[in-house]
Amino acid sequence: MKFSERKRDVAIVGVGSTRFGEHWDKSLKDLIAEAGFKAATEAGIRGKDVELIVGGNMSGGMFVGQEHIAALVADTMGLQPTPSIRVEAACASGSLALEMGFLAVASGMYDVVLVGGVEKMTDVYTSGATTALAGAMDLEWEAYFGLTFPGIFALIAQRYMYEYGLTREQLALVAVKNHDHGFYNPLAQFRKKITVEDVLDSTLVADPLRLLDCSPITDGAATMVLVPAEKAHQYTDTPIIISGIAQASDTLSLFNRKSLCTVNATIEAGKQAFSQAKISHKDVDLVEVHDCFTIAEILALEDLGFCKKGEAAKLYEEGEVWVGGSLPVNTDGGLKSAGHPIGATGIKQVIEIVHQLRGESPEPVQVKGAEIGVAHNLGGSGATVVVTVLKRGD
Amino acid sequence: MKFSERKRDVAIVGVGSTRFGEHWDKSLKDLIAEAGFKAATEAGIRGKDVELIVGGNMSGGMFVGQEHIAALVADTMGLQPTPSIRVEAACASGSLALEMGFLAVASGMYDVVLVGGVEKMTDVYTSGATTALAGAMDLEWEAYFGLTFPGIFALIAQRYMYEYGLTREQLALVAVKNHDHGFYNPLAQFRKKITVEDVLDSTLVADPLRLLDCSPITDGAATMVLVPAEKAHQYTDTPIIISGIAQASDTLSLFNRKSLCTVNATIEAGKQAFSQAKISHKDVDLVEVHDCFTIAEILALEDLGFCKKGEAAKLYEEGEVWVGGSLPVNTDGGLKSAGHPIGATGIKQVIEIVHQLRGESPEPVQVKGAEIGVAHNLGGSGATVVVTVLKRGD
Repeated sequence: MKFSERKRDVAIVGVGSTRFGEHWDKSLKDLIAEAGFKAATEAGIRGKDVELIVGGNMSGGMFVGQEHIAALVADTMGLQPTPSIRVEAACASGSLALEMGFLAVASGMYDVVLVGGVEKMTDVYTSGATTALAGAMDLEWEAYFGLTFPGIFALIAQRYMYEYGLTREQLALVAVKNHDHGFYNPLAQFRKKITVEDVLDSTLVADPLRLLDCSPITDGAATMVLVPAEKAHQYTDTPIIISGIAQASDTLSLFNRKSLCTVNATIEAGKQAFSQAKISHKDVDLVEVHDCFTIAEILALEDLGFCKKGEAAKLYEEGEVWVGGSLPVNTDGGLKSAGHPIGATGIKQVIEIVHQLRGESPEPVQVKGAEIGVAHNLGGSGATVVVTVLKRGD
Repeated sequence: MKFSERKRDVAIVGVGSTRFGEHWDKSLKDLIAEAGFKAATEAGIRGKDVELIVGGNMSGGMFVGQEHIAALVADTMGLQPTPSIRVEAACASGSLALEMGFLAVASGMYDVVLVGGVEKMTDVYTSGATTALAGAMDLEWEAYFGLTFPGIFALIAQRYMYEYGLTREQLALVAVKNHDHGFYNPLAQFRKKITVEDVLDSTLVADPLRLLDCSPITDGAATMVLVPAEKAHQYTDTPIIISGIAQASDTLSLFNRKSLCTVNATIEAGKQAFSQAKISHKDVDLVEVHDCFTIAEILALEDLGFCKKGEAAKLYEEGEVWVGGSLPVNTDGGLKSAGHPIGATGIKQVIEIVHQLRGESPEPVQVKGAEIGVAHNLGGSGATVVVTVLKRGD
């Protein structure tokens, strides 16, 4: 994307999210409506103000039998005939919705755009959530042979431990830290602090990954309102500017990559987004990264360039990635503690940064004086990555 | 969309499509690759030229168990790390891909964009194609109660016949005309002329709709290359300009609409697209409309304003909608004869218009001197509609 060719900057002026968790009493529509109206209310917009809806959803089809998700959103919120688009890139779906919404506003062709993400995963239509999720990997070369996502990330973890000497205890710190943060997130699925021992004692899922290394199956929706930055103060006193957003792709299948321990799409999207925003790593006050499994968070921090390959564990042992450290990571609990409703995750990550930059996160997880945040989201095992840089508006 | 705020015009400079039909020997990937490389070859571009991929697909999940379709396209074509986006709006998915691609180029932020659509429907993963297709309707208020798409369009046809006196024979003329045209389309699924009697004698599917009123289950892919119009002559001598493109939404469920015989989203999107392109109906040389069932074509022509409500049948009886008439409709055979691989249909419609405006359609279905064509695509029973106006470039 030629970011510098944008006609104008884009601001986030309202956000809203459901609680993440098991919503047995709420349908896909209920989740969409709850998050959508919260965001619209916060921005103070009315239905007729909305010019475009972009919604991220991975698999309404396989999870609940519902496709045509874009029109469903417009219909559920009573916004027809407003155009509505669904985008999909597995776990990165919500981030792609944000990127499309950004493009729409930055181009000058749309003024008020609602972007969101939703997934309803606990009431599964097909043979199981793991089967549906396998649609995010290479079906012919991975899923058909029995590989699952815990299996994919276990392979990555095994190789990483072999190459860089990461210990099982160090890996557990990722989950411990995310639960430490998520404890204070009122919308998190699991608000419970855990210890390294809890992780090591939890059920083995795919060696070396245990239950507490894995993000959960979650229902949830998250929405935000985008407008041109020059008009943001009509809607809010605390606009948050999208100062960089980039997407990159890689092979769907793991075996096609040169290394199991590096996600090229993260490197590529990260470089582009940092360059667009004209920032360096030391400017970043907090980061949200994709921690579907603990090992994924380690890879993300390294591939984004916050430390050298093989050295992320030190950041955990030294406490740098907790709030109060030099690089707070996943201050809302990440996917691990806050939950991972696939299509909604990318939007939720950005919402957390919005709260932090506005200075309205709960104590003690508010990052003091935060001005710049980075969100990293990953689809599948890294075939799609979106990196977004956000900064506090004037 | 504020069409007039676009930074530049957008041209189609290369197109490619697979044969539409039953491809038991080709996977989703094979279809993507075949159409994608055809379009890229026609435009004379190389992989590294492509800055963005936008792919329309309704339900890779329910049809073949594969989601993450965007990355699949980039991977299959060897285009990583190029960003790739999948969009979905049921049968209108391909048209939305075109619209997103248009936005990307019109904004000035992308120069070379590959847009396409694909669906693999004959090798179905879940309980059947009809179940998967039901994901395009309102699951909670329609599909759960046993309604199918033939059922939805049968309800519409019944009501239309009651209100406007359309006869069964008149309705059959839609299929007859589309098979007359599709006979000359080398990529069509059914290259066979049929008669009104054939339609009336075919198996009853959902009264009054018979087998030959229904578009088929199809595998196929279609792709095109978009570039800024000002650079189009680097790629082709015959660029085709997207001079209008608009999307509108309506309720997913039929019962929520004021009339069964009018698709509001068609009216809305049609008005916008015609206004963007600054054309009136008399300027239009040919039309591609969504004929998933014969009755849908009737509604589309009326809601687009080519005749008054209730009067489309006359155009068929007088032969005006055949090539040679005043308003040739579905000169490639439409969905009925050419086939309907859901995600690919919107792109295929526009490819047909591209061929016509270039003057390279086969005789006798070439519309002489065609300069302006309109494509209309519909998702579900009309919850999403995209109307595109194309004109021959200079």
